[in-house]
Amino acid sequence: MVARKIVLSESEIPRQWYNVLADIKMNPPLGPDGNPVSPDMLAPVFPMNLIEQEVSPDRWIDIPEEVLSIYAIWRPSPLVRAVALEKALDTPARIYFKNESVSPPGSHKPNTSVPQVYYNKVFGIERMTTETGAGQWGSALSFACAQFGMECRVYMVRVSFDQKPYRKAMMETWGGKCVASPSTETKAGRDILEKYPDTPGSLGIAISEAIEAAVSDTSGKTRYSLGSVLNHVVLHQTVVGLEAKKQLETIGEYPDVIIGCAGGGSNFGGLAFPFVLDKINGKEIAIYPVEPAACPTLTKAPFVYDHGDTARYTPLLPMHSLGHAFVPPPVHAGGLRYHGMAPTVSQLVNEGILEAKAVTQLDALAAGILLSRTEGIIPAPETTHALATVVEEAKKAKEEGKEKVILFNWSGHGLLDLTAYEKFLADELSNFVLSDKEIEEAEKVFAEFPKPEALKSR
Amino acid sequence: MVARKIVLSESEIPRQWYNVLADIKMNPPLGPDGNPVSPDMLAPVFPMNLIEQEVSPDRWIDIPEEVLSIYAIWRPSPLVRAVALEKALDTPARIYFKNESVSPPGSHKPNTSVPQVYYNKVFGIERMTTETGAGQWGSALSFACAQFGMECRVYMVRVSFDQKPYRKAMMETWGGKCVASPSTETKAGRDILEKYPDTPGSLGIAISEAIEAAVSDTSGKTRYSLGSVLNHVVLHQTVVGLEAKKQLETIGEYPDVIIGCAGGGSNFGGLAFPFVLDKINGKEIAIYPVEPAACPTLTKAPFVYDHGDTARYTPLLPMHSLGHAFVPPPVHAGGLRYHGMAPTVSQLVNEGILEAKAVTQLDALAAGILLSRTEGIIPAPETTHALATVVEEAKKAKEEGKEKVILFNWSGHGLLDLTAYEKFLADELSNFVLSDKEIEEAEKVFAEFPKPEALKSR
Repeated sequence: MVARKIVLSESEIPRQWYNVLADIKMNPPLGPDGNPVSPDMLAPVFPMNLIEQEVSPDRWIDIPEEVLSIYAIWRPSPLVRAVALEKALDTPARIYFKNESVSPPGSHKPNTSVPQVYYNKVFGIERMTTETGAGQWGSALSFACAQFGMECRVYMVRVSFDQKPYRKAMMETWGGKCVASPSTETKAGRDILEKYPDTPGSLGIAISEAIEAAVSDTSGKTRYSLGSVLNHVVLHQTVVGLEAKKQLETIGEYPDVIIGCAGGGSNFGGLAFPFVLDKINGKEIAIYPVEPAACPTLTKAPFVYDHGDTARYTPLLPMHSLGHAFVPPPVHAGGLRYHGMAPTVSQLVNEGILEAKAVTQLDALAAGILLSRTEGIIPAPETTHALATVVEEAKKAKEEGKEKVILFNWSGHGLLDLTAYEKFLADELSNFVLSDKEIEEAEKVFAEFPKPEALKSR
Repeated sequence: MVARKIVLSESEIPRQWYNVLADIKMNPPLGPDGNPVSPDMLAPVFPMNLIEQEVSPDRWIDIPEEVLSIYAIWRPSPLVRAVALEKALDTPARIYFKNESVSPPGSHKPNTSVPQVYYNKVFGIERMTTETGAGQWGSALSFACAQFGMECRVYMVRVSFDQKPYRKAMMETWGGKCVASPSTETKAGRDILEKYPDTPGSLGIAISEAIEAAVSDTSGKTRYSLGSVLNHVVLHQTVVGLEAKKQLETIGEYPDVIIGCAGGGSNFGGLAFPFVLDKINGKEIAIYPVEPAACPTLTKAPFVYDHGDTARYTPLLPMHSLGHAFVPPPVHAGGLRYHGMAPTVSQLVNEGILEAKAVTQLDALAAGILLSRTEGIIPAPETTHALATVVEEAKKAKEEGKEKVILFNWSGHGLLDLTAYEKFLADELSNFVLSDKEIEEAEKVFAEFPKPEALKSR
């Protein structure tokens, strides 16, 4: 009997994160004046220890003991050999996945919410604010705040707040406070409500409210937290890839293909970056970030300077972007419905180290059903995008008769997103693919911003 | 740093289940004629290999390789040291729990749904039927049927069907079919609908429909499956206690107190029975099944012969029972809202080997909140009943200054039951405690049935 899972003991959780900034060249984020942002400009938003981590050039960064001790609630996560999927596809490929759905909030997100809350607490902060769309990130931050005895306030996009009441209940069970956005708590919220009393809200507005709530606390004890895109966020996620590497080593395997879904880039980068280091050093690996065809940031949008949020509060980030005002079609892709992409992931795509792919909603959910019925776990809608590509690669391996080793990230379970499967099974969903014209239109918002340089890291 | 989790590799999953029938004396189940039921009378309902297991006197029963291979999707489950809870309660007790929430359906239920479907398949069965109340059992059976390529039809109590659409979506994602009960598919369902078109349904009706759907299939290829109460069901769950024992041995621990919530008795018996064997052999252990004060089967109801279902389809079982027509108050206790109890658990309570406890809804959910914020996992409403007793025992250990070792079963997570926490946090719930008069009234239904003997196993 082939072992399904490779498990490690707690003492084998990696002790350091891998910082890809040590190995690639990056364009700097720019402030409103067009000049590179200085750390102190970010100080009202993030604590200085995290800002230092955001710009650190060190290749390896120690994981604090306090963080390791909370990681141990669910880490090391299992590395699973997808034996049932292999059998169903009759493929010679050996398929492995990191099961990040085992964390209490059900996704990879607490890999960064826990250290973020820890660093804030060490810095003397008492309250955290953030936004959440589908609810995964707000849940993960509430979970982490409960662990450190911190207050947590989550601005949740109203339409999701109304459609997914379980997410609010989850956050509040952990002691967080979840507010529908736009709210009357912030000026940003009130302004929008005055103009559009019936607005369903947007991630852009929710980010504005969360940032405002943090910077306007005159006690200085509140900071804002972001769940993806930024360097320190992806850094924290590299515990996933480092663990996977260790686990594969114990059985003498090394991946030929690495696959992860990509919205802001954090679960993808978390798995892939430790292998990117090997690729930079000469290893031959195919590495695929996978995005929704309805939100084709890496596959269709240009590499530009753009804001991370609709309200233009963030610095200009060098990234692939569909434009900060872009509103993706209503596909069931949760956190993948984001206009931008982590600058690190964007840079690595530019250099050809990563090769981006896009899949349609129906292909993604069909793969989700196949994996639910073979490997047993019901995947999050985000994860199904990686799965569709895994299935495609496994079929290709069969055609080519190649014993490829495929590694992917099972970023979360879909137990709070079952509506997507219900609608798929009832044949109520269709595909959305953006036309070139729609993309051109969305891109107008960054036409006048400075352009990043085409850097070569190697 | 104290390790939070004791993990084992797949090769360490127990290879045999423990059958408590080998070590205790039991009254036999009785047929409609008042005589002991013979195996062939059950043949239209269950496959013969499971009927043989139901009455087997063997102490150890081999777990088939095919079952072990599917158990390996989530087993061995972690044994967790509840360090954060210990700290919060400042108790000298060392508290451990078996985390059964890690299975894909999120509870201990697949420990028996997987072998049940396996034995049915081996026997040549192609379709399974069952009922489900809150949805845990129907989900677990759908999951298992997907693994073995079997059809699955679940009759779900209409009120839950309407209130918990995610459960239906979950079952159907695994390929099961979920029908609101009463349905027009069965005579039992049609009869009820004719009389009471607006009935919310009941577990009793749903059982009737599931049994009828199985026995009326003239091809002989359909059988019914039950998720608790019966001997073979609790037998399959003993993998939990056997694993826990192994895990505790690796760190040189042995429990002084064992706690599990008890509805039909399967998660409780699964954890406790391997230790009951030790207790019978002279070990001093306190073992507590915990039930809702609103459904006090073991703590308030007599030991009698009664039917397992409202429609009186099942044989008469020797058990503690509130009466087969009993409808418990609307507490958030999911699968604990059952009028009867596993005959094995009942017998062991009679003999004083187990000491039953009852807790109120508000105490249970308060413990659920405490555990969510310390250990991180949001427990199922059922599990919170065990938790309230764990908290009480830990406080007692503190008062007494005793270094007790407490072991309990975290039977499932509450991610599809978050409404209970939402209402609790909003202060919308109250306690229900049954009056003696209400209990007397409910007990009239078994007044004329034969009485079981007061047996002594030791």
